[in-house]
Amino acid sequence: MVTPTAALEPNATSFAQLDAADPWVVDVRPAREVIPGYHDRLVLTSGAPMPWGEYTGGQREALIGGARFEGLAADRESAIAGFESGAIEVGACQDYGAVGSLAGIYTASMPVFVVENRDRGNVAFCNFYEGKEPRRLNYGCYDEGVHERLDHVNSVLAPVVGEAIRRQGGIALKPLIAKALRMGDEAHSRNAAASVLFAREILPSVLTMTEEGFPGVRETMLHLAENDYFFLRLSMAAAKASADAMVTEGSSLVCAMAFSCRGFAIKVAGLDGWFEGSPPLHEGKLFPGHSEDEITWMGGESTITETVGLGGFAQACALSLQNYQGGSAESMIERNRTMYDIVQGDNGSYRIPLFAFRGTPTGIDIFKVIETGVLPVMDVGLAGRDGGQIGAGIIRAPLDCFESAAAAWHDRYGA
Amino acid sequence: MVTPTAALEPNATSFAQLDAADPWVVDVRPAREVIPGYHDRLVLTSGAPMPWGEYTGGQREALIGGARFEGLAADRESAIAGFESGAIEVGACQDYGAVGSLAGIYTASMPVFVVENRDRGNVAFCNFYEGKEPRRLNYGCYDEGVHERLDHVNSVLAPVVGEAIRRQGGIALKPLIAKALRMGDEAHSRNAAASVLFAREILPSVLTMTEEGFPGVRETMLHLAENDYFFLRLSMAAAKASADAMVTEGSSLVCAMAFSCRGFAIKVAGLDGWFEGSPPLHEGKLFPGHSEDEITWMGGESTITETVGLGGFAQACALSLQNYQGGSAESMIERNRTMYDIVQGDNGSYRIPLFAFRGTPTGIDIFKVIETGVLPVMDVGLAGRDGGQIGAGIIRAPLDCFESAAAAWHDRYGA
Repeated sequence: MVTPTAALEPNATSFAQLDAADPWVVDVRPAREVIPGYHDRLVLTSGAPMPWGEYTGGQREALIGGARFEGLAADRESAIAGFESGAIEVGACQDYGAVGSLAGIYTASMPVFVVENRDRGNVAFCNFYEGKEPRRLNYGCYDEGVHERLDHVNSVLAPVVGEAIRRQGGIALKPLIAKALRMGDEAHSRNAAASVLFAREILPSVLTMTEEGFPGVRETMLHLAENDYFFLRLSMAAAKASADAMVTEGSSLVCAMAFSCRGFAIKVAGLDGWFEGSPPLHEGKLFPGHSEDEITWMGGESTITETVGLGGFAQACALSLQNYQGGSAESMIERNRTMYDIVQGDNGSYRIPLFAFRGTPTGIDIFKVIETGVLPVMDVGLAGRDGGQIGAGIIRAPLDCFESAAAAWHDRYGA
Repeated sequence: MVTPTAALEPNATSFAQLDAADPWVVDVRPAREVIPGYHDRLVLTSGAPMPWGEYTGGQREALIGGARFEGLAADRESAIAGFESGAIEVGACQDYGAVGSLAGIYTASMPVFVVENRDRGNVAFCNFYEGKEPRRLNYGCYDEGVHERLDHVNSVLAPVVGEAIRRQGGIALKPLIAKALRMGDEAHSRNAAASVLFAREILPSVLTMTEEGFPGVRETMLHLAENDYFFLRLSMAAAKASADAMVTEGSSLVCAMAFSCRGFAIKVAGLDGWFEGSPPLHEGKLFPGHSEDEITWMGGESTITETVGLGGFAQACALSLQNYQGGSAESMIERNRTMYDIVQGDNGSYRIPLFAFRGTPTGIDIFKVIETGVLPVMDVGLAGRDGGQIGAGIIRAPLDCFESAAAAWHDRYGA
């Protein structure tokens, strides 16, 4: 199934708008203050929207934990009752311009990075990384430790990082990510370079704030120094702000990929809504003491990075990931190379030194996926059925989402 | 000419001592305070020792500039007269445990990094990077701007960096370099990751110093943030402290490589003195506006990094260097791979993600170089005959040094 002629020009437009995107992080504020339509009883989670009753396993637990963290329910039972009655509302992150890491829980008080695409003015959001501890709310866990770490983000880390970002007048993320790709990151499962580059960007303000005795600066900077994953949330928000710019009548390019406990789903730049399919296919490397049968799907939208030519689509930049997610340098390089078969073009900013600085494969075309049978590859963390991160690996988007999207494209735009 | 049996065990010892080296930067002090035997009228430069009259071109100009910077002479003519009479003394950096970048000028007041090999207790030194400006003293230039920048290093940057290092109780350089290799550095011509990682290491002390109003902290940290080459001098001192640990009776492994305006030279771990040869062979990429015939040799000892398995021996980590020094990713990878043919073993700490984390080729064996004809490859900056940096590239050590070293080995140790 080759790309229909009628999609060619729209696809070029979608790609150009994505490639011109200029995401800047401009602020950090509680979700309720900056996300349009947010209200105090709203909890967001990853994947295509579903009613409460459809959420199962870790993703359901994560939603319950979110409600408890926010003080919407005193315990597990009353949280469940609240969701059932509608007193507590579940929403899908991307309906609010946000993207969720794994289960991706947002509550009203949680601070979010505000990322503005200065090319077109659209805005996207992502909340903070909880830290290295494998038990995290977004991995379906909620206990006193999780609560404390989230509280620490709210009360210490986010105010410092937000103040520093505002004092810097915002920070351009695209050049920072482009640089990080030359320093071994792919901006999804590896963010070691971008995290330290980001800390360096805010340093002038951080020094001034230190002189002024602004509270929590040292703690925050030490947290940043220890958390090579810190930048992922900025990478995700930058990717979301960029991908949202792809929307173009007639385009057959993918502008979002996400999954929930139910399955994988994509959005297409020229179509409305989500196209849902099977759960993703995976090959992973588990942390010691864990086994394959523990792997569970509880959501994930960090795959927005692959949507804009990062992550799995830039993994030849980040060969160190062999250690983390398994596989060999050769297989990573080969996987990255095959992604050129299913995209609109080469990214103008994100480049791969190993490929003579060729731009990363960018702008997945649903018709090329179907034509070649090459499935988009994504670098992700793997969650365990009892909650927590149990490993990392590669997933592939299932073909069925692309097939139903292609059918919808033909329904709407004809042959 | 295969490695003589009598060298095998000594080579294994040399390699093990190199591999066990644990270089820590522990202080920054003026050369006169910490380098044994330093005196106020001593100027050091790169390469095997030579009498004043042998220094020509840019290296001679650099020595003259050093004498003037230090106030040993009021002008060029009196500096020359001082060197001729012996009132100003020329020395070879490595006779003092120091290593010189390019012409490598040291004077008594210049601050040096003090790097201690905590495995064996030996100490090495390197002075500071002058900054990005192509006109630098170590590239044979001396004028008001050069003087001011060196002065700024002495009075602002070095005191802050030194204080921060001391407060941290020293900083382990080997793990930092190992990490930087996973972030696109090879620790010779690319130090972008190591520089930012180093800044992060000293951050706790920097924040305290900021709180205390220690002078020059902001200026210093902004200088570090802008100078991706800052770390090279730490990499060089770490390499020197490591390479000096190789000295072993009977060893045929190279423990230093350097060049002067006269030619290339190597030291061998089981032999005394330098083995001098022709100038290095080169292929480079020049900055716009410069031509091949301008390239001149005015010294260089940053090749100590290749001696310990970094730089050209780790260039498959740093494919971004294509842009800076020319060549393709493929040629860099292939060059790196051939270095395994001439070394004792794989580095235990410095590893190459692209080669499945194989250790970098380490411990050049003079006999393997002669047997294979494969010449050690080094990543360097290129100087112009009128002074200043005019490009960057790859150089190769000439065969004749290895041949005379092999002859000397046989003279001393028999067949």
